[in-house]
Amino acid sequence: MQDIVSDLQAELGARVMCESAVTHAHARDTWSLAELLDYQGQPACSPIAVVEAGSTADVAAAMRICRAHKTPVVAYGGGSGVCGGIFVGEGTVVVSTRGLSGLISLDNGDLTATFGAGTMGGDAERMMQEHGLTIGHWPQSIEVSTVGGWVATRASGQYSTGYGNIEDIVLDLEVVLPDGEILRTRRTPRAAAGPDLRQLFLGSEGTLGIVTEVTVSLRPLAEHHVRQAFHFDGLAAALAPVQQLMREGWRPPVVRLYDPRESRRHFDEACPKERAMLILLHEGPKTAATVEASEVAALCEKAGGVRADSSAVDEWFGKRNEVPSFRSLVEGGLVVDTIEVASTWKHLVNIYDAVTKSLSEVPGMLSATAHTSHAYRSGANLYFTFVAKPDTPESMVDVYRDCWARAMRATLDHHGGIAHHHGIGRVRRDYLASEIGDTGIAVLSQIKRALDPDWLLNPGNLLPEPTDRN
Amino acid sequence: MQDIVSDLQAELGARVMCESAVTHAHARDTWSLAELLDYQGQPACSPIAVVEAGSTADVAAAMRICRAHKTPVVAYGGGSGVCGGIFVGEGTVVVSTRGLSGLISLDNGDLTATFGAGTMGGDAERMMQEHGLTIGHWPQSIEVSTVGGWVATRASGQYSTGYGNIEDIVLDLEVVLPDGEILRTRRTPRAAAGPDLRQLFLGSEGTLGIVTEVTVSLRPLAEHHVRQAFHFDGLAAALAPVQQLMREGWRPPVVRLYDPRESRRHFDEACPKERAMLILLHEGPKTAATVEASEVAALCEKAGGVRADSSAVDEWFGKRNEVPSFRSLVEGGLVVDTIEVASTWKHLVNIYDAVTKSLSEVPGMLSATAHTSHAYRSGANLYFTFVAKPDTPESMVDVYRDCWARAMRATLDHHGGIAHHHGIGRVRRDYLASEIGDTGIAVLSQIKRALDPDWLLNPGNLLPEPTDRN
Repeated sequence: MQDIVSDLQAELGARVMCESAVTHAHARDTWSLAELLDYQGQPACSPIAVVEAGSTADVAAAMRICRAHKTPVVAYGGGSGVCGGIFVGEGTVVVSTRGLSGLISLDNGDLTATFGAGTMGGDAERMMQEHGLTIGHWPQSIEVSTVGGWVATRASGQYSTGYGNIEDIVLDLEVVLPDGEILRTRRTPRAAAGPDLRQLFLGSEGTLGIVTEVTVSLRPLAEHHVRQAFHFDGLAAALAPVQQLMREGWRPPVVRLYDPRESRRHFDEACPKERAMLILLHEGPKTAATVEASEVAALCEKAGGVRADSSAVDEWFGKRNEVPSFRSLVEGGLVVDTIEVASTWKHLVNIYDAVTKSLSEVPGMLSATAHTSHAYRSGANLYFTFVAKPDTPESMVDVYRDCWARAMRATLDHHGGIAHHHGIGRVRRDYLASEIGDTGIAVLSQIKRALDPDWLLNPGNLLPEPTDRN
Repeated sequence: MQDIVSDLQAELGARVMCESAVTHAHARDTWSLAELLDYQGQPACSPIAVVEAGSTADVAAAMRICRAHKTPVVAYGGGSGVCGGIFVGEGTVVVSTRGLSGLISLDNGDLTATFGAGTMGGDAERMMQEHGLTIGHWPQSIEVSTVGGWVATRASGQYSTGYGNIEDIVLDLEVVLPDGEILRTRRTPRAAAGPDLRQLFLGSEGTLGIVTEVTVSLRPLAEHHVRQAFHFDGLAAALAPVQQLMREGWRPPVVRLYDPRESRRHFDEACPKERAMLILLHEGPKTAATVEASEVAALCEKAGGVRADSSAVDEWFGKRNEVPSFRSLVEGGLVVDTIEVASTWKHLVNIYDAVTKSLSEVPGMLSATAHTSHAYRSGANLYFTFVAKPDTPESMVDVYRDCWARAMRATLDHHGGIAHHHGIGRVRRDYLASEIGDTGIAVLSQIKRALDPDWLLNPGNLLPEPTDRN
């Protein structure tokens, strides 16, 4: 161990941190199970060192040294992942990207901005808004996640229905590869120049490289916006107009539909009991946003929707970036998590019914609910939240795993995809073959092995570890 | 040679064609240089056999047998590529996908359709239109290209500004890998489940697998459309409102802007001399299309645009899928080709000026012109056409290569990307490192080697061949 730390220090000096307060803070992300295990006295390992990189060259140096020592390397940005994408094993070096922070360049005419990968999301967005621009990417975690983390996890924002997911927003990446080489992917809005290399790293979750710079394609802040809300006789009744508005080509940035239980929780006054609340944000040039709001309203009302007080939407906007802490819930004996999946339209209600039914059969289940918040021409996501209170603290881990197994199984049984935007991490790793097939796992593993022959980048994450690992 | 053909015949029977009329017809695509070399008596090799696959299993069988014999394999769809993506070398087996034809499934509610990869584009689109639907992908080659070819080459259609390029339209792929295994990529509109495996094959140009089925996300045919045209005082003057309309968030499916020389060629009556013609198609719900057409018209007129007779647009629509034949031009002693590149907004005029100037300095150059036909928030493409008449037939190949070298160099000198939508093939292969760097080439080569260790799929295409090839 000392060898690798000495070598890192020789090259990177004070950027190599071994103090336990620092290493302990980089052991894991905010995965609910990790929080629970931590509380129960089974924490993730602290890394042997944290490299607080200040430049791409620092990341490359750390990568080369770790490779020479065959030491596992885990990249750490905001640490806000919820799937166990970071859960450090023995003898690991963490590379923090947080020092790669700030705006590197901005071109208001070209609508491009380049950020250090460790720039916090909220800071990046505020810097753009000062210029009348927006990234248009609003994950709930925006204040606790980094721009590089958005890329590594294939994130979605709350405005994705109109503005796309992170893969639709990223123009160019700089990535340090497992061999320490530095890749820049491209410099134009579109290319037919072989496979799109950005896509190797969007969703790679730290297993194929470390993202060091991110260039995004921006938008001007919208001239006008309209917020409106409608409630419907249940989730299925409200999905029909959502499907129809997507079909007709309307693209409100925000289209969020809550099941009746979540509607009660979030919109107590504005949404009557047993009704499903749909909230909408329309943005753009005033004429376009006005026409869209009016046409979508007509479509909702034709489908049985009743207009709700739009102050309910304002309330959601006010709270939309609050991130819950699992710790206090765990301390209260509660097992809690969120699980987002996706499917084409015709399977959505079946998946909703099957997952909530299966979760409700878990002993001690207090609540299993869902909303949908990202819509496409051919389908949408479902975002489940469950809260269970097992009889004993000892059974909390088993109950947690049972809930996930039930949600994954019910989704797969009804032709859904197991992961919409939180990623795979460790919580879904053993279900990935159900999503992309054994052949997909083989392809990803072959690519992993080609770029990272010693399987050093975030081992145990995303993919099962090979049995022949060195 | 006999060995591999016998083994193919033993497994695939009459699907293995060795008649010279068949093999000769599968030697190459419609690359201008290949046409010229053919005419000058240096044709591509005929393959030793053409496997006319009738099923995915046929493709997988052919792939396994070729791998066992270490025989190169080239996939052939419509053969309409223009970059030398197909230019068969010695001892090669061609797998034709044309028998993998037709609609496999259609879901009008989910807006999804699955086609055999060998379905001709025009046929696929007409089948959808019978149901009031559209794929929304209109390459000029739609009547001579296959759906699988669109994927393999990362194609763009004429409606891309509103409806996206092929990567925005494809939902799921079935691909036969170099080892004969069959990959299905996913079944949902969006996933954060590791790197997007579809992207490995979008633009792989036959080097990483053979696409056998393609599922697309459809659109209903638009309720309403508006065609309009404006002419401006030159290309630069007209680019400003195009950039502005993209910036404001308008998304006309068709945004085509011709330089003054092309405007004279295509719109003789409707466009005065020295003016640059912009043609626009707005589509969607009637209210939305009407608002967009009106706002974009105001923006064009404010920027100095003069409304032209919209029958000019109708004329373009009438002729838009006519594909020229290079053969008669070559026979007339002309060297002709098209070269599409891309850049962010601020470099476009510089690239236009530099490429047309450099091409005009080629001895015998008759015409070097351009239009832009695919716009994005952060930039657009440029599509150059050149026609030269060298002094002697012997110099035609050198002139051709000189024209390409000049266009590539001028584009790179001005920060452009070398390939917007025709792909790399053989004509751009030696420039690919300028686009994605030596590191990008290394990454692609490592992936190629991992999936295709003997480098058998379309060797010599897209990537330089490794020097240590078996």
